[in-house]
Amino acid sequence: MASVSTKLALYDLEGRDGRRLSPFCWRTKYALAHKGLEWEDRPVGFGEIQSIGDGSHRTVPVLDHDGKLIGDSWKIAVYLDQTFQDAPPIFPSLDALHYAQFVERWLFTQVFTAMFPALVRQIHEHAKPEDQDYVRRSRELQLGGMSLEDAEKRGAEGLGAMAVALAPLRAKLADMPYLNGNEPGYADIVAASTFMWARAVYPKKLFPPNDTVIPWFKSILEMHGALGRSAPGYDITGA
Amino acid sequence: MASVSTKLALYDLEGRDGRRLSPFCWRTKYALAHKGLEWEDRPVGFGEIQSIGDGSHRTVPVLDHDGKLIGDSWKIAVYLDQTFQDAPPIFPSLDALHYAQFVERWLFTQVFTAMFPALVRQIHEHAKPEDQDYVRRSRELQLGGMSLEDAEKRGAEGLGAMAVALAPLRAKLADMPYLNGNEPGYADIVAASTFMWARAVYPKKLFPPNDTVIPWFKSILEMHGALGRSAPGYDITGA
Repeated sequence: MASVSTKLALYDLEGRDGRRLSPFCWRTKYALAHKGLEWEDRPVGFGEIQSIGDGSHRTVPVLDHDGKLIGDSWKIAVYLDQTFQDAPPIFPSLDALHYAQFVERWLFTQVFTAMFPALVRQIHEHAKPEDQDYVRRSRELQLGGMSLEDAEKRGAEGLGAMAVALAPLRAKLADMPYLNGNEPGYADIVAASTFMWARAVYPKKLFPPNDTVIPWFKSILEMHGALGRSAPGYDITGA
Repeated sequence: MASVSTKLALYDLEGRDGRRLSPFCWRTKYALAHKGLEWEDRPVGFGEIQSIGDGSHRTVPVLDHDGKLIGDSWKIAVYLDQTFQDAPPIFPSLDALHYAQFVERWLFTQVFTAMFPALVRQIHEHAKPEDQDYVRRSRELQLGGMSLEDAEKRGAEGLGAMAVALAPLRAKLADMPYLNGNEPGYADIVAASTFMWARAVYPKKLFPPNDTVIPWFKSILEMHGALGRSAPGYDITGA
């Protein structure tokens, strides 16, 4: 637990109806909870990120520790381990850090890219009304000029590619309950955060029945007093 | 170092001209070298595997430790750590083990499958003459009945898929020299063993120029007195 003199607050990306839209913010919430730290929730829309601190932050999460601002979920995780050394480590070894980073590279290059077209119109749909113009403009740029609606039409193809790309996760979970073994670690949190992002906006199933991903994801949603499940979202597991 | 009373020998899959054909055997050779152990080299062709010990082994590596036989590269690595606890650990943490296993699942489902058609006829070509019938029969079964020659014709397509599938490795190596950070670990050995297998049989380049994979792979070939590079093989890096 942080001492009474320590005050932590987290700027967390919020959409409409309290939906929490950022996988990177999800990682930091799980990192804080893992360390047994309490924090003040500071939800912000896309357009409010530039009003954090001196306005230099372009993304969230941003952690406010007694007035000191730290951005980037990796930097925050390392900062938490360095600052709260008596609390359980997020990275019990350097290998745990490298593993989580490899999982992120795999997610970004193979999984996220495949899911993105199917989900992107729903991100726009679930953003705060005042953020929707920004979300459309920035995401259509990311799509190389394709409209959100055209991307959604191609979504099924991407989800097919995602199903193939998830094979390493499935294969690992066929042997062990978590990527980190018998207990979840940060590699699990990094992977699951992608689906927490999906869960916030995507109103359909993402996995076939009996997928090894389903019990794993549900278990992570229940951790730390249902930290994940208690946030508004859809049932992407269909279970 | 193993004590003088300890005798280690490794059954290693051999093709023609002393080529070493098994990625799993490569892992075990690097595991033994990492622990500073000396071992007797016992090269065997495909057809000789059944003559090891009581004939129950279907694959190599098989480690002979004072007459006790251990198969499966994962089991051997764990056995070496348990048995030679004063030597440097292959798995300094459980996370290092889980990381290496996830890398294997990723390799097998995404990378190996993509490379296989382009390389399979060359495996046959580089097997010992007495093993060639077996290699053709078993590999054509693995290919769902396709001939080695037809698989090779489709190889280019697979190598294109491999180039995409390698993105997580490339992205991790863009940040750090090895998958395990500043020093190579077993995740690196597992990944590199796939290319040692390729290097033994594939007479062309596998990577584009300036690929981050190239300096990484070359560095691993040089480890432990050029353990990898000194084995007969082609220059798949083109560098």
